[in-house]
Amino acid sequence: MKTNRKNATGKLKIIPLGGLEQIGMNITAFEYEDSIIVVDCGLSFPADDMLGIDLVIPDVTYLQDNIDKVKGFVITHGHEDHIGSLPYVLRQINVPIYATKLTMGIIEHKLTEHGMLETTKRKVVKFGDSINLGHFNVEFIRTNHSIVDAAALAIYSPVGIVIHTGDFKVDYSPVFGDTIDLQRFGEIGKKGVLALMCDSTNAERPGFTPSERTVGATFDTLFNEHKNKRIIVATFASNVDRVRQIINSADKYDRKVVVEGRSMINIINTATELGRLNVPDNTLIDIDNLKNYPDEKTVIITTGSQGESMAALSRMAENTHRKISIKPGDVVIFSSSPIPGNEKAVTKVINELLMKGADVIFQDTHVSGHACQEEIKLIYTLVQPKYAIPVHGEYKHLKAQAKLAENIGMAKENIFLLSSGDVLELGNDSAKVTGKVPVGSILVDGLGVGDVGNVVLRDRQRLAQDGIIVVTVVMDRENNYVVSGPDVLSRGFVYEKESDELIEEERNVVDDALNACLDKGISDRGKIKSVIRDTLSDYVWKKTKRQPMILPIIMEV
Amino acid sequence: MKTNRKNATGKLKIIPLGGLEQIGMNITAFEYEDSIIVVDCGLSFPADDMLGIDLVIPDVTYLQDNIDKVKGFVITHGHEDHIGSLPYVLRQINVPIYATKLTMGIIEHKLTEHGMLETTKRKVVKFGDSINLGHFNVEFIRTNHSIVDAAALAIYSPVGIVIHTGDFKVDYSPVFGDTIDLQRFGEIGKKGVLALMCDSTNAERPGFTPSERTVGATFDTLFNEHKNKRIIVATFASNVDRVRQIINSADKYDRKVVVEGRSMINIINTATELGRLNVPDNTLIDIDNLKNYPDEKTVIITTGSQGESMAALSRMAENTHRKISIKPGDVVIFSSSPIPGNEKAVTKVINELLMKGADVIFQDTHVSGHACQEEIKLIYTLVQPKYAIPVHGEYKHLKAQAKLAENIGMAKENIFLLSSGDVLELGNDSAKVTGKVPVGSILVDGLGVGDVGNVVLRDRQRLAQDGIIVVTVVMDRENNYVVSGPDVLSRGFVYEKESDELIEEERNVVDDALNACLDKGISDRGKIKSVIRDTLSDYVWKKTKRQPMILPIIMEV
Repeated sequence: MKTNRKNATGKLKIIPLGGLEQIGMNITAFEYEDSIIVVDCGLSFPADDMLGIDLVIPDVTYLQDNIDKVKGFVITHGHEDHIGSLPYVLRQINVPIYATKLTMGIIEHKLTEHGMLETTKRKVVKFGDSINLGHFNVEFIRTNHSIVDAAALAIYSPVGIVIHTGDFKVDYSPVFGDTIDLQRFGEIGKKGVLALMCDSTNAERPGFTPSERTVGATFDTLFNEHKNKRIIVATFASNVDRVRQIINSADKYDRKVVVEGRSMINIINTATELGRLNVPDNTLIDIDNLKNYPDEKTVIITTGSQGESMAALSRMAENTHRKISIKPGDVVIFSSSPIPGNEKAVTKVINELLMKGADVIFQDTHVSGHACQEEIKLIYTLVQPKYAIPVHGEYKHLKAQAKLAENIGMAKENIFLLSSGDVLELGNDSAKVTGKVPVGSILVDGLGVGDVGNVVLRDRQRLAQDGIIVVTVVMDRENNYVVSGPDVLSRGFVYEKESDELIEEERNVVDDALNACLDKGISDRGKIKSVIRDTLSDYVWKKTKRQPMILPIIMEV
Repeated sequence: MKTNRKNATGKLKIIPLGGLEQIGMNITAFEYEDSIIVVDCGLSFPADDMLGIDLVIPDVTYLQDNIDKVKGFVITHGHEDHIGSLPYVLRQINVPIYATKLTMGIIEHKLTEHGMLETTKRKVVKFGDSINLGHFNVEFIRTNHSIVDAAALAIYSPVGIVIHTGDFKVDYSPVFGDTIDLQRFGEIGKKGVLALMCDSTNAERPGFTPSERTVGATFDTLFNEHKNKRIIVATFASNVDRVRQIINSADKYDRKVVVEGRSMINIINTATELGRLNVPDNTLIDIDNLKNYPDEKTVIITTGSQGESMAALSRMAENTHRKISIKPGDVVIFSSSPIPGNEKAVTKVINELLMKGADVIFQDTHVSGHACQEEIKLIYTLVQPKYAIPVHGEYKHLKAQAKLAENIGMAKENIFLLSSGDVLELGNDSAKVTGKVPVGSILVDGLGVGDVGNVVLRDRQRLAQDGIIVVTVVMDRENNYVVSGPDVLSRGFVYEKESDELIEEERNVVDDALNACLDKGISDRGKIKSVIRDTLSDYVWKKTKRQPMILPIIMEV
């Protein structure tokens, strides 16, 4: 773990390859001379205008161009926005992965699904241990977060130490494991830290994030208040501690527990196998055995707390779940808060549950996994970095952390809000953005990775807005005349019954345009198509104030 | 205003024609024997899956079927969700409109735009006045809301009085006009009220909604704190009182005011003409004169507080506004809170403003226009209705008001949560949902009203998801053989460069399918098209896990 800084003549480069432009794609390269390590490899979910897209992953051209330098992926924790792109990126950059136990368990499950487990080198790291990767040493430090086994990283480079908090909070009474290793933050801080990269998610929120355990107390109260009702709790699939607390309350009030929703079942199984979740004997039952117990002796823990239309809770609310439907009197607890953008979907599910006669509860049933302002200030004060690089959040969150850092005495010029691709060069006593590497978003649609780009998206947006009109004409190959057509057909434009007349008019408009072309002796097929497109487009706009895509097709015989 | 209840043998029917299924479409029919009056006539904005739709208006078949009974539209206030459908519905149901002064001013502006002003009968009603409409008398009662001249209605029918609050809050220190006429609510309550239809929007929120004036105090503080900066305030176009308070603060701190955004300019003009907004002389300046004043002596009041991409604020933030762009140091105040569903759009604008170096403020800069729990309980206590019909809100809001009403002593069976189309029949001493009338949403897309239905929407959703593949074949009319093609063309499916090879494969798949048909002697064009569609669809799914729309076209020569 010693690196002789006196000899350091090079610069440490810190390069976010995802980040601000695509929230969720957490992936950062650390480069010193011939060594690159990559912290996290997350994915992002498509923005509203990315129609039909399933996932968004980072463009790792920079890593591919420097493949010989890349020593490995160092992963802070097992959330999708930190591990989700691994199965895609590993295909290009097949280097070892380093992570703590549960994090690795979740990654392995993912790799197995992609048939990549055998071909990927992996090493589980314990808190306090370090790994040596070229010019770097990386130490894993225990933190608290909404998933077990979350780590901060102390990255020892020839020019100094960088601390990356990962996603964290300070939980003085965690449900599983120990409190974040504040002593170690202090100890390393005392040695002198070059830069701190700290979680910004809650940097706008004053105070402290409450302990996960406070939610357990709420569950006890609610279970006590609703002794005669069935209880359904919706929460995040990966929050093992939350599930643990629900099971604790169930056990206390003598209820059996069913876990429902594929992603949750997977994580619970992995966590149990790895000793990260201990469930009292005979508490968990299979969903098919639910019928053997009276309602008031059961709890269902389910996915769908974000209103996801295909998740178990939504299906229960809509009566499309095969095994569970909502009954009047059911108590549904949302142990979650809506992620920005999901508010309407969550409200929709709540309305449906209420209409079915359920009682819906969402007060004091969730705490965040991210540090609020007092916790962020605590970390800054323990670490006392020379430079600050707020990470993890939208621009407004990074900005809020920057303000906090200034308020506790950091010089403004020592705080860096990096955009994706920015190259921040750090020396013993210097920091400067010196350049930009290529970065970007690669869209995953079905099996296609990167085959949907801006042209395709623009077409989809256009099609979504006003549909398409297809015009087909058969023309003679040798001589410039129409053999058959024009025929006009539309999809997603107007309702068929209304459209018969309109289509006839459109056909006439195209016919006139075609004849005008032929009269002028225009025979170039491209030119004819463009006349058809323009004429019809004008006509349709005038008639309907819509702009469907117009696709003229000329067949030759 | 007397109606002899002893003679009442009929029933009063209350029928929400919009409402729960389409939030925003506030329109309710009140029917007694040969008289129908309609309270409000709002529009709704399209749900996320209504691709390409501009507006949603109510299906008023029931009113058309009973056109001879319909006496008029009685409008509570000038917000879009209460007046927006008038220009469409009046085409079918051309009856007089009754409203207060500013409300009518806004309606008239709308009718003028639609060229319908001359053909629509209108009557401005003063607070305290009543209008006689067949079996009904309707009294307008002053309330407070986020728009001036909002009214509650006391609807006198032969079986009793119904009070409809409209959208309201209790503001003891309103910016313009008087406090809600609580005395009159009490006085009518004392006479005996059959039913109360009360605003549910904030029924989940405890306490009282603060006075509009509190926002004025915040503006003063902010203007004082930022004396050396340009100030930009984004707020709702129709909140004349809010604009008034911004202008007050500007005047106090010797700043000139520019109003920007078409909808806001329209309302300000209307309100000024009608004496609902008094602006100090020489405070408002034209946007083109902005350059004649130093930044710190100006305030820009603008639309776009909901992150609407085409509104003035978004254009300023994106540097696409023709006259104003954001500069470092600008102070941007959001005097609004995001309407559910707009959170992400608002955050996007905030991030862009921050990136341009602006300071963004959104604390204590807005109050709601709707009553919270204490105000709702106050109205119930003044009115003491026999029956309660919570209105205006999603199901969870109506449900929350129902709980409140129960908590202050109403019997559960006297509270009705109505769905669109429900017919609630009220007698002197009875209330029961007795039937259902046809209701629904009519989609407006460009000039088309109702020509986009479920089939078109499903097509748009499909097109949006994975695009379209068009297959064209020319066949001989007489004999069953292929003259030209098949040709394959796609839009919104895969990126062109990637797709050359795929399209060639698709062409081959279609070719094989075609030949198989011909070999079997299949000549039915419909059958051939369906074979092409199925075969290609299977192939594409296997290769890409996508389901583009497939459109086979056979031309005959």
